[in-house]
Order: sequence, then structure tokens, then C-alpha cells
Amino acid sequence: MRLTIKNFTMSTPSKPKVVLAYSGGLDTSVILKWLCEKGFDVIAFCADVGQHHEDFEAVKAKAVNCGAIKCIVTDLRADFVSNYIFEALKCNAIYEGRYLLGTSVARPCIAKEMVRIAHEEGATYVAHGATGKGNDQVRFEMCAQALDAKIRTIAPWRDAEFIESFKGRSDLLAYCTKHGIPVDAKPKSNYSIDENLFHTSYESGVLEDAAATYEEDMFKMTVSPKAAPEESTFIDVEFVKGIPVKITNKSDGTVKADPLELFMYANEIAGANAVGRIDIVENRFVGIKSRGVYETPGGTLLRVAHMDLEGICMDREVKRITEGLANEFARLCYNGFWFAPEMDLIRNSITFSQKDVTGVVSLELYKGNVICRGRTSPYALYNPDLASMDIEGGGESFDYNPSDAAGFIRINAVRLKTYAALRAKQGEH
Amino acid sequence: MRLTIKNFTMSTPSKPKVVLAYSGGLDTSVILKWLCEKGFDVIAFCADVGQHHEDFEAVKAKAVNCGAIKCIVTDLRADFVSNYIFEALKCNAIYEGRYLLGTSVARPCIAKEMVRIAHEEGATYVAHGATGKGNDQVRFEMCAQALDAKIRTIAPWRDAEFIESFKGRSDLLAYCTKHGIPVDAKPKSNYSIDENLFHTSYESGVLEDAAATYEEDMFKMTVSPKAAPEESTFIDVEFVKGIPVKITNKSDGTVKADPLELFMYANEIAGANAVGRIDIVENRFVGIKSRGVYETPGGTLLRVAHMDLEGICMDREVKRITEGLANEFARLCYNGFWFAPEMDLIRNSITFSQKDVTGVVSLELYKGNVICRGRTSPYALYNPDLASMDIEGGGESFDYNPSDAAGFIRINAVRLKTYAALRAKQGEH
Amino acid sequence: MRLTIKNFTMSTPSKPKVVLAYSGGLDTSVILKWLCEKGFDVIAFCADVGQHHEDFEAVKAKAVNCGAIKCIVTDLRADFVSNYIFEALKCNAIYEGRYLLGTSVARPCIAKEMVRIAHEEGATYVAHGATGKGNDQVRFEMCAQALDAKIRTIAPWRDAEFIESFKGRSDLLAYCTKHGIPVDAKPKSNYSIDENLFHTSYESGVLEDAAATYEEDMFKMTVSPKAAPEESTFIDVEFVKGIPVKITNKSDGTVKADPLELFMYANEIAGANAVGRIDIVENRFVGIKSRGVYETPGGTLLRVAHMDLEGICMDREVKRITEGLANEFARLCYNGFWFAPEMDLIRNSITFSQKDVTGVVSLELYKGNVICRGRTSPYALYNPDLASMDIEGGGESFDYNPSDAAGFIRINAVRLKTYAALRAKQGEH
Amino acid sequence: MRLTIKNFTMSTPSKPKVVLAYSGGLDTSVILKWLCEKGFDVIAFCADVGQHHEDFEAVKAKAVNCGAIKCIVTDLRADFVSNYIFEALKCNAIYEGRYLLGTSVARPCIAKEMVRIAHEEGATYVAHGATGKGNDQVRFEMCAQALDAKIRTIAPWRDAEFIESFKGRSDLLAYCTKHGIPVDAKPKSNYSIDENLFHTSYESGVLEDAAATYEEDMFKMTVSPKAAPEESTFIDVEFVKGIPVKITNKSDGTVKADPLELFMYANEIAGANAVGRIDIVENRFVGIKSRGVYETPGGTLLRVAHMDLEGICMDREVKRITEGLANEFARLCYNGFWFAPEMDLIRNSITFSQKDVTGVVSLELYKGNVICRGRTSPYALYNPDLASMDIEGGGESFDYNPSDAAGFIRINAVRLKTYAALRAKQGEH
Repeated sequence: MRLTIKNFTMSTPSKPKVVLAYSGGLDTSVILKWLCEKGFDVIAFCADVGQHHEDFEAVKAKAVNCGAIKCIVTDLRADFVSNYIFEALKCNAIYEGRYLLGTSVARPCIAKEMVRIAHEEGATYVAHGATGKGNDQVRFEMCAQALDAKIRTIAPWRDAEFIESFKGRSDLLAYCTKHGIPVDAKPKSNYSIDENLFHTSYESGVLEDAAATYEEDMFKMTVSPKAAPEESTFIDVEFVKGIPVKITNKSDGTVKADPLELFMYANEIAGANAVGRIDIVENRFVGIKSRGVYETPGGTLLRVAHMDLEGICMDREVKRITEGLANEFARLCYNGFWFAPEMDLIRNSITFSQKDVTGVVSLELYKGNVICRGRTSPYALYNPDLASMDIEGGGESFDYNPSDAAGFIRINAVRLKTYAALRAKQGEH
Repeated sequence: MRLTIKNFTMSTPSKPKVVLAYSGGLDTSVILKWLCEKGFDVIAFCADVGQHHEDFEAVKAKAVNCGAIKCIVTDLRADFVSNYIFEALKCNAIYEGRYLLGTSVARPCIAKEMVRIAHEEGATYVAHGATGKGNDQVRFEMCAQALDAKIRTIAPWRDAEFIESFKGRSDLLAYCTKHGIPVDAKPKSNYSIDENLFHTSYESGVLEDAAATYEEDMFKMTVSPKAAPEESTFIDVEFVKGIPVKITNKSDGTVKADPLELFMYANEIAGANAVGRIDIVENRFVGIKSRGVYETPGGTLLRVAHMDLEGICMDREVKRITEGLANEFARLCYNGFWFAPEMDLIRNSITFSQKDVTGVVSLELYKGNVICRGRTSPYALYNPDLASMDIEGGGESFDYNPSDAAGFIRINAVRLKTYAALRAKQGEH
Repeated sequence: MRLTIKNFTMSTPSKPKVVLAYSGGLDTSVILKWLCEKGFDVIAFCADVGQHHEDFEAVKAKAVNCGAIKCIVTDLRADFVSNYIFEALKCNAIYEGRYLLGTSVARPCIAKEMVRIAHEEGATYVAHGATGKGNDQVRFEMCAQALDAKIRTIAPWRDAEFIESFKGRSDLLAYCTKHGIPVDAKPKSNYSIDENLFHTSYESGVLEDAAATYEEDMFKMTVSPKAAPEESTFIDVEFVKGIPVKITNKSDGTVKADPLELFMYANEIAGANAVGRIDIVENRFVGIKSRGVYETPGGTLLRVAHMDLEGICMDREVKRITEGLANEFARLCYNGFWFAPEMDLIRNSITFSQKDVTGVVSLELYKGNVICRGRTSPYALYNPDLASMDIEGGGESFDYNPSDAAGFIRINAVRLKTYAALRAKQGEH
Repeated sequence: MRLTIKNFTMSTPSKPKVVLAYSGGLDTSVILKWLCEKGFDVIAFCADVGQHHEDFEAVKAKAVNCGAIKCIVTDLRADFVSNYIFEALKCNAIYEGRYLLGTSVARPCIAKEMVRIAHEEGATYVAHGATGKGNDQVRFEMCAQALDAKIRTIAPWRDAEFIESFKGRSDLLAYCTKHGIPVDAKPKSNYSIDENLFHTSYESGVLEDAAATYEEDMFKMTVSPKAAPEESTFIDVEFVKGIPVKITNKSDGTVKADPLELFMYANEIAGANAVGRIDIVENRFVGIKSRGVYETPGGTLLRVAHMDLEGICMDREVKRITEGLANEFARLCYNGFWFAPEMDLIRNSITFSQKDVTGVVSLELYKGNVICRGRTSPYALYNPDLASMDIEGGGESFDYNPSDAAGFIRINAVRLKTYAALRAKQGEH
């Protein structure tokens, strides 16, 4: 009961155009060629979301070599930082209490550009190399459909004929040889990798054994705690309305204020201090549990700082309600609902919640630890005079009368006493 | 507009009894004496919840010396671990995303014993030395009232006359001198401390300056990351239905299975590896923001292990719903509602959620880091064959058809496309 | 890109068995015959969930006439009432604030029996006549797959070949004529109907115009308010732990205590008094908005009574938390997740919440109105002495001191005052 | 352990000013005089929030007669409708699933004006006649403190001396006689009443017996269903962004578009048709269960219309999230947190959720029933072609492929099958 795209390409008089999310790797190179063979004009699209050491000129050349009519590389890094990563950090978004959504947040950014290119190029199809079991197919296609209900997606790894043709890596390699597609000399790694500015993820392959740990040399953005420096790095992070606007390295005086530079610098110093690795089993939207290892250095650092600042600036009940909304944000983002109406609602609410989250947090970074060393805010609701156990009132700002607490407690206990009386009457206590 | 207890003791023909939560420190010693002066028979009560190096014999002697008719010390440690700490860890309870509730969880345990003693001794009053601005007065009294609606509480730090008499530390010391109450030679520390098996907290005094950090030598249960060993400690933690039942130190072969011993050992190894310190501004139930520094070594370690095990054993939606209930648990516990009807409901639900959370998690402890090194469970819902991007179905267990994902995505996108169509019609996109 | 079942039946050496959910109507009769033609041995299954005036003997005869090797009718009414309807009423389940889930609750009951029959008969397939746009396909198949992961479903209305063959009602009628399948003399109604003990639903056809109202003579279980008697009916409903156990008609002395009889009687008296009609646009799980008209007479009556009893028996915070769980219950039930792990969790929690919901509610039924006329409970937390504005304390049960409220209010206002002070400082107020 | 205001008035050199919420009734007249005796200059304040048949000139005269230096009557009706009632209806706010918050919503409106008057008049105190057990003291004072942290409240019914002096109605009457305060000829009713434009509430007195029903002649805004006309009233209600902007009576052609007139007309026609009565036991913020009978005719009508319109205009998930926020709104409003930071957050979110809730709902009113007779919207997400079971796709707007549903269902069932497999392995099913 498999589907294949074969039939609908047969009957097309002029060549339909497809925008393919292209990485230059084995899978998407084979897909590119295969789409050409199927009769498409393929526009390769490579999103620069901050992958490490990517040689985009080489990718472009390879795309054309594989048959693409064009290869477009878009530098989405500044957009990615300001409109996606910072939106997630603004609500401390974390999926299932552990995952910072590094891949999830990149997908809508990439999909939006891909749809824009499709419109510009007159393409009615988009294609991607994501598998049929993962989250990325969902995120990619949900975003594309939300942005253009008419656009059609080709997902070869869900296509019956494609799957039949390429049962393993050797089939892919043979196809490359046959079509003169150059293959990377280095052997396939034992796991798959997704890289962007926010994080690098590692999953599949040897990592599918949830009982076993990973190799320390796998990581690209962070050193291991043991390899990190003996000396701490001390920084200040400044936020305005929940958005980081400046990082100051107090050890060496470095200052970064441009969003992209700031975020790259956060990655650099957090990574150098072994901050931000996790190894978890999470729940995919398609109902499958999946093991992933992630490193999110800058994001981890900024999230700690932001939560700490909320501690002094955000009202208790605003925090409680916003936490609930942030959990929805995380699930929606993870599941690919970035451009959904409920996401618009939630992002509007979160922005409102941040109106007073302005101030500076001091941090020490040391061998995987992010240690708060102080925080200040012109909007602080924290009032040391009020907090003080030694001062009776609340300082000059206002009057706190300790005797009021007695009434507060007794009224709060009314329900409990009523319930206990019933239990006693029922002979239960 | 202050209250004092003076009037109602005057008219009492026979001496009323009061059970005083007694620590042996300056404040509660003064309170003890003051209650005697007010005409009470005072039964001093000292709960052993695992304070460090407490000399309970000395405390007893001092209580009697101050005028107590009796001093009762109860070892609540095993009860505290099994019925309070493990209940909190069972739902990964965390207040405002950061605080592990170390003090909050101890209060109901202590209050319950105090009410039991009051009943045994025929006391109709209980008293405590908590201040009128903090959480502990609330927790203590809410629990006491829920357990016995008739019991009355005396809180001298909310009593007008008491506050008038003791405006500062020098008044307390003068009172001691006058009444022959011995005073600790060592000077008052610059902050206040609460200690139990679960954690040690530091707040008030110099810590009220939220912009300043703490002294490294303040801590009692943990070393600082820099002082921790260069070698890692490797352990396995075993859980049955969400409860830790065994810790194995794989480096030296130590095994602990008794709940109290296990928890003390978790504290020992986590503390030695600098695990579990936080410095936060949190929101008290009385509406005040408060800065606290906490060390919760064993609890931090066990919480990481437990969450990791849930990753492979707990269904995604059960996790989602239980997380919401755990947030309620944390708030209720923090606010003193341990013996509330809604807490019974939530604890019942959480226990149900843990029926399959059985298995072993391997951890590495290193300089403040708790690193997951693998997990296994006989009840795992994690299925590597199903998760695998390389295997088409789900292994022998069942059929996963990647082409189904196409339909899944398209149906999930129906709402998004409808909404986008409306936006387009309105000319908004 | 349509699927059809053709291929896999071709290669089957011995005839595979399929259990078909059979109603005796036009669609499922055609499907029955079509499955026979496809090479299946068809076991027709007709669930008696309380449809009105259904002649099950005639249905059986027709099934066999259409080619079924057997037709099984199971009386599921008692099971449906006790294990499905009462579970929903126990939490006042309501979807999107309006729909009482009459169809949704029946599907798992029917699917469970269908899977049981499949196992008994050695069938590896189940089939149904639900469309590809609705909720019932989802509910039916989700339940079947949860109960038996190996069972396969045939849904002809999603089958490409079937849809091609039967493009409209005339094709279905022509097929009947060709195969000698008797067709109901009465013309197709202008909408589709689903009937069971809990409700009757009307949708599709002329009802798709959401701007237009329905015909008054459409309804089967209720009269219209204008046609209802001028005299009220007065009843008492008794609950034990959230479950209705007795209805007493105070006008004529009728008493019903058997669950099925009680529920049928509730339908009878509520229907006679025009109780329980709604006309709404709701959101299907497949992302489509859908207009439905429903009549749920007995369920509406019992829900009002149950909510009212909770008012006097259930603690405020237990109510708050349970309401949240009940909303999850409603969504899960509506979406077909009856046999999901999270549903087990929620049903456990709801059962716990009902431990004190025992008592009697008096109601008046009159022309669509269900009017509460009093309620009593041996477990009431409602305490008139405590509630009374005229009595100072709480009667003999305990002490409520009005002056405590002052402290309660002032402490609750601490956050608000702090926030207002910040706003003033920022010049905003 | 009672408080009284006596002491602090003694030491005041010049007379302090207090603004008293004055109704002209027995209690507040006594309070007015008592405050004068205590040494205050009393400014009586009477809020016109739409009480029935109130003679404000008589109230003013009586206030001055009782000793007020001034009596200010403010017509708050338009403000109350637009900024309070419509805010509640915008989110269908309902407390504990039943109460439309008629009194709760009025308190912040009144308190705001009272604080404004205090500022204008240079008063540093406000006073009210609410009891120490109810919600209104809380709402009133929470709002006042949020608006002015320095303002002090006098609540005589929580004042020890006042309570001692006025133990029952006869003490109040005797005080009136002594001070020449005229007393209403009509005897005190057997319950207490709160009236405003939104609703009339009845509680206390004979209504404290939750087992007994109320007298039919108690109500002021509604007739009983039996007394309502035999003919239905047909209306159209138009909303823009969730706010009602026009009511058209289709029977007699009446049209109302001004917010206050519209709302008064909604009350008139709904009341005439017996719409909006409830009799419930609810949970007060002070932990007491309370029985109340309410009539909210116009609010009930408009809420039904608004929810129905949301059915066609609001996305499913936006609805789900907004429902949760609306529950918070209802609790916050009920508990007096109108001017709280979290209320600002929630009201912002709800306003956002209403951006497409524009359209017209047709209703029939008949003997207590509000029956939807159709709805239309230029922003409808409801698409009959998409909803139709008879049409394959979604009409011209887009493609719905029924075969996609198969994949949707199978992917949704993955978790369920995995869980069932585990249960089977454990021998549980």
C-alpha cells in the first residue's frame, strides 16, 4: 500500500518545478538526481542557518552537477536568531522538561524561505529528504502547507518506488557511481547529525541503543566538562523585554550586542565551558519514542539567564500562567505548528508577559555549570526591604503587617478544616 | 493593630500546654522562656529530619534549662524520606521551574508529629519561631489546622507584645542573660539557614542583596565545582514504580537499598561532586519575592535519574498530563497544602502515573554535572526498531508504515490551511 | 493517489474473515455485498446500543440475504450505560463547552465488542461504513487498534475503487437492484442520523447550512418546548460516588434504580419535557468544522443534577483540578482515545474525585428547563452555619473569625500593591 | 482577638475623610453615622450600576441626614457595560461552570470610582458594609489596594467594637431610632439582594437551606418560565471582534446598537422570556461554600450567542487555549483580582483571540430557552463544502483527501499500540 509520485509527473506537459531542500549530502544528492529523472526542473535550496564549516560554494557546484537548474543559498542566520531562537528563549521553551527545540525552531524559518523561493521561481512543488518516521517531515510540511495551501510536497523517503530502489546505503552509493555524483570520501558516521546555530543534534544509528552512552568526540559545539578550562568565564547578559541585547565578558572585556553576533558569542563561550549537552529519550509527534543527544551551548546559557531575570521582574501569577503557555509553545513548535492560529495567540501572550523583563544577569561559566552570580533590574518586583525577615514592614514602599499573615493562614485553612471535619465524621482520619 | 496572646492566658485557671517546635537556637530558646512566663507548660519538640551534626542531647538539656516541662526528640528521617521526599521526587516536583522544595516538603512531616505529640500530651496549643513574612508559618499552621481544626497556634514573631519586646538581636541576647539562657559562643551568621536531609537553604541577611553572590564556604552538603574531584563517580539508580530502590556505586561497589540509607548516600556522592546548588529569586505564598540559595545534592541526582527513566517508560500524553499535575503538586506543597483534599487527588493521580516507571538509569557525577550514561527498563515503551530511521516498520512488534505519515500531516494541516485561506481572504498574509 | 483493498484479497488462499459493523441501511448493505465480492467471508455485527424501534430480526435477515455468513446482534445497552455513559457523566464531560459526546462515548463500547467477535470468529479484519471526513472512522479504528494492534480495518468510503464505483446514492441503489438487495421504501432523509441510548445526532445534508435552522419534526427523543406539557415533572435523583443510583418521580411515584432502566427513564421524562436539544458548530478531530444538532435528554438532566451535587460535596480546588481533567476526558473521548494510557490516568483521577459525591438532588422539568429545587448529602462540605452572614463563627463545627479576612485580603494584595508601585514608578498609571 | 478602628481615630488632630460605599439601606446608614461618631468626615458614595428603581435623590438626602458631608452618585452604567460586562462575555466567563459573575464584575468598576473620588476629595480611607465572610469585602479591598496601595479600608462588619454594638437587626434599628435615622417601612426580606445591570443575586437568610427552593416572586429581572409568553421572541445579535454591537428584534423591528441600550434591551427581552435563572452552591474565595440564586437574563442570552459565533469563527486550538484562560479570568474576577498583573495578561490574550469573532447569530427566546436558529460570519472558518460527507474534497477552497485519514488514524494509534503491546507483555490485557 505504498504511494509513489510516478503517475502525476507522467501527464505533465511542461516540466514542473520543485524546490528541493538540499544539503549536499548523499541522500539529497540522490534525491535531486531522482527528481530530475522523474521529469522535474529542480531548484536546489540550501538554507544557511549556521551549520558549521559548511562550504556553500561546493554545495552549489554539486547541486548543479547533480542536475539542478539552479542552486540558491540563503543566509537565514539573522532571521533565525531574532525571529525564531529568541522567540523560544523568550518563554524558556523546553519540550518535555528537557529539550530546547534546536531543530524544531529552525524548520519554520527554513520552510518559510523555501515557500518564498517556490513563489519566486514559479515552483508548485517542494521536496525534502526527511524520513517517514521523524518529526522533520511533519514540521517542514505543516509549515509549508500553512504558508501555501496549494503547494505540494514530495517526500521521497515516503515514496514506495524510491524506497524500493534505495533499500540501503549501498544502493545510494551505486546510484551515485552510475550517475557520476561525487561521494564524500569520509565514511558515514554512526549516527545522523543536524546542525544549526541553536544546536547540534545526534540520533539514530548506534545511538538507538538507549542503554549505551555516546562517544565524547562526537560533539561539534561543546567540549566535554573534563576538557573545559580550569578557569571560569564571568559574563553579564542584558535583556530588554525578554530579549538578550548585550553580552559582556567581564574577564576579557568582549562586548556583543548585534543579535547574531551575540548569539554566536554565547555559543562560543558556553561551548568552550562545556555548557549545554543533554542525552534524552523524547516523544515524537508521530507517536514514537526517540533517543537524541543534543548540545545547545548558547541557548542553555541564555535560558538560565532569562529565567533568573524573570525571577526578579515577573509577577508570580503571570509566571504561572506564562509557564503553561510556554509548554504549549514548546509542544506546538516541536510538532510543527509554528504558523498555526494558536501559535499566534500564544506568541502574542508571551510577548505581553515580557514587558518588564529588562535587566542584567551575571553568570559564571565553569565546566558545564552556569552559575548565577547576581541580577538587577530597573523593573524589579523584588524588594529586599519587603523580603527581609528583619524589617517589619516593606520599607518605605509600603506596609507589610506580619499579623495579617495569621488571618491569611486561617482563611486559607477554612477549606482544609471543613474537609478534615467531614473525614473525621466519616471515621476516616 | 497588633495582636498579642496575653489576654487569653490570663484567664486560664490551670496551665495550658503548648508544644513548641524547638531548635535549641537563640530565637526558640527565648520563645520557650517567654511562653513559660506567659503561663504555659511548654513541651519542647525537636524533629530530627536529618539536620547536620545536631546534638540532640544538648538541645534537650537546653530546653529543660529554659523551662520546658519536657523535650521530645523524634527521629522522623525514615518517614521524611519515604513519605515526603520520595513523593516529591515521584513527580519531579519543582517550584517555578527551579526550586526542589527542600523546606516545603519537611514542614508537613514535622507538623504531623507535632500534632500527634499535642494529642498525646493533651496540649491545645502549638507554637513556632517562624517569622510573619515567610512561607514556613503558613506551611506549619496550614498542616496543623488540617490535622486538627481545634488546635491553636502561637506565633510569637507575629505577636505585638513579643515584637515590641524583641526589636533586635541585642534584645534577645539581653533576655538570655537575664534568664540565664546559655548563648552560642559563635556569632550569628550573616544569613539564616534551614537544614534537613533533603536540602540546606540559605536566605536573609546579606543574601537579601539579589545583585550579590554568596560565599563559597557557606555550604554544608556540597563542595563547589572547583573543589570537586577530578575523577567522575559512576552510579546506577534503580526505580520501582517511580520510587528509588537501589543505588550502586560502580566505582567502588557500594550498594544502598534501604530508603533512608539510599537517600543519605545520594546526598553524600552528589554533594562530593558539587551537584545541586541553586541561587534564585522565588515567589512566596504571602506575595513577597524572596532570594534563596539552596543545595539539594541527592534530590537533584535522583530527579535527573527519575525524569530520564520516565523518558523510556511513560507515554507522551501521560507525561504531559502528569507534568501539569506535578506543577500543582509543587505549588500546593510550597504553599503548605500538603493535607488538602486536592493534594490527595493529585498524589493519587501521580501514583497511578508511575505504574510502569521501573528500571535502571546509569549516571556520571562530575563537578556539578549529572550526566546520563544509559537507561533500561522491563516496561520500556521505547522501541529502537520502531524509532530507527533505517528500519521501515517497527521490527517484529508491529508495523509502522512511513506513507501513513503523509496522511497524518495533511490532516493535521487542514486547520492551518483553513485559517491561512481566511487570512488570505482578509488580505492579511 | 487512492488506496484500494483489491490487491491484498487477491492473493489470499483461504477466504479471510471480516467483521462488518452493520446497520441494515443502504450503505452498509452495499458494503456487505461488496466485501463478499472482494472475497471475504463477512460476519455482520449489529450493536444494540439503544437505537429506537430497531427490528434486529429484520436486520439479521437482510445481512444474510446480502451474503453475510452470519449476523451477530449484541445487546450492549447495560454495558454502554454503566461503563461509558456514566463514566462521561461522572465528570460532566462536555466537548467545547456544549456537546455531551453522545456518539463519541458509544464508539469504544461498540469497537470493543467488535474486536471480541473478531477474536471469537477468527477474523483478522474489521470494516465500517463511516466516511473519510468524520470523527467516527477515527474513534472506531483508534479503539480497534488499541485493543488489537494486529487487526486491520477496511473503510470502503476511503477506498479508491469503492468511491469510484459509488459516486452517489443512485449508484448505491443501482447496485442493490443488480444484487437483489431490498431497499427501504421511504426516501433518504435530508440529513444523517446516529442513534443510541445517550443521544440522537443529526448532521450533513440540509443541516450543512449553518445559517439555517432545523425542522421541529426531525427529533426522535424529545418534543419541542412548545409541545411539552404545561405541568412540570418533579423528580429526585440520587447519586453514590458520582454515579446515579435512583430516580424517583415525585409526581407519580415511579422509581428506577437499575442503571439501564434508570437511564431509559431519564430519557423518557426529560424527552417528554423538551430537555436536551442543542444546535452547534463543533470542531472535528480531522480539523474540519462541522454543524450538528443533538438531543441528549437523560444525559442533560443527569449532568445538571450531578454538577449540582458536586456543588455541595466537592472541595473547591478538587473541583478546579477535576474540571481540567474532565476537559481532557472530553477531548480524548471525542477524538477516539478511549483506550489510551492517558485516558486510564484520567479516569482513575476522576473516580477518586467522586468519593464524596453522594446525595440527592431535586429537580423540576418544564418545557426545556431543568430547575434545581434542592439538594442534600451526608457528605456535604456545605455548612449553612459557616456560610451564614448572620452567624459570626461556623456554628459548632468550628470557628470562623471575620477579622481574619482582613489579613487574608491584605496578604493577597501584597503582589498587587508591589506591581502597582512598579507601574507608578514607570509612570504608567 | 478582634480589631477595632477606635484607636487610630483618637489621635488624629484634624478630621480624616472616608469615602463610604453607601446604599441608603439600614446597614450602611448605621455605618455612616457610626463613622461620624468615630470622628470621620464621611463622603457617601453611591454607584449607579443599574439597580432597579433606585431613587438616588432620596439616597442622597438620607446620606446627608445621617451626617455625610457630601453624597456623590456616579452613573457608572455605560462604563460597567463596556469595560466590565462585555469583557466577561468576551470570554464566556463562567465560574465553576455555572455562575456568570454578575456581582464580581461590578466590584472593580465601583471600587475604581470610589478610589477616584477619594483622591479627588483628599480622603485616605474607604469604607464598606460588606460582611467578613463574603466575597465582596475581598473584591472591594483587593481592587482598592491595587489602585492605591496607601488607601486604608474600614470594614465595620469586621470591627470588634462595631460587631459588639450591633449583634442583630434590633440593635441596628435601636441605633437608628436613637439617632433619628429613618428606617424603611417594609420589613427586611428573608434573604439579601445585590442588584446591578448584569444580574440580581439572592442569598443568605432562608436561602441558606440548600435543600429548599426559593419563592417564585423573589425575582426582579425575570419572569418564571410558566409566566413567560406563549409566543417566542426572535432576535439577531451581531458581534464585532467578540463584542455585541447590535440586537435586532425580528418580531417587532426594534434595533439597539448603543452598548448600554443594547444590554438593557437584552435584559428586557431575555427577562420577559424567563431566561437566565440559576440556583447553585458555589465556593467563595474565603473557603466557604455558599448558596446563591441568580438571574442574569441579558448576560445569559449574549453568552449563548457569543459561544455559538465562536463555533464558526474560532479555530479549535485557539478555542481550547482560550477556554483555559477564560477559566482563569473567571476565578480572578470572582476572587477580586481584576487589577492584578495576571488579569492584564489574560485580558490581552482574550482580546487577541477575538479578532475574527465577527458575525450574526439568530436566536429564539421561549420560556427559559435560548435556541440558536442560525449563524453567519464573514470570517467563518466553517466551510460547508469541507464539512460535507457527500463532497470528496473541500470544494474550491482546497483539497481534502479522505484516504489521508487512514494515515492520520494509524499514526495517532502508534502510541496506543505500543502501550497495548506492553500491557499484553505484562499479561494485563
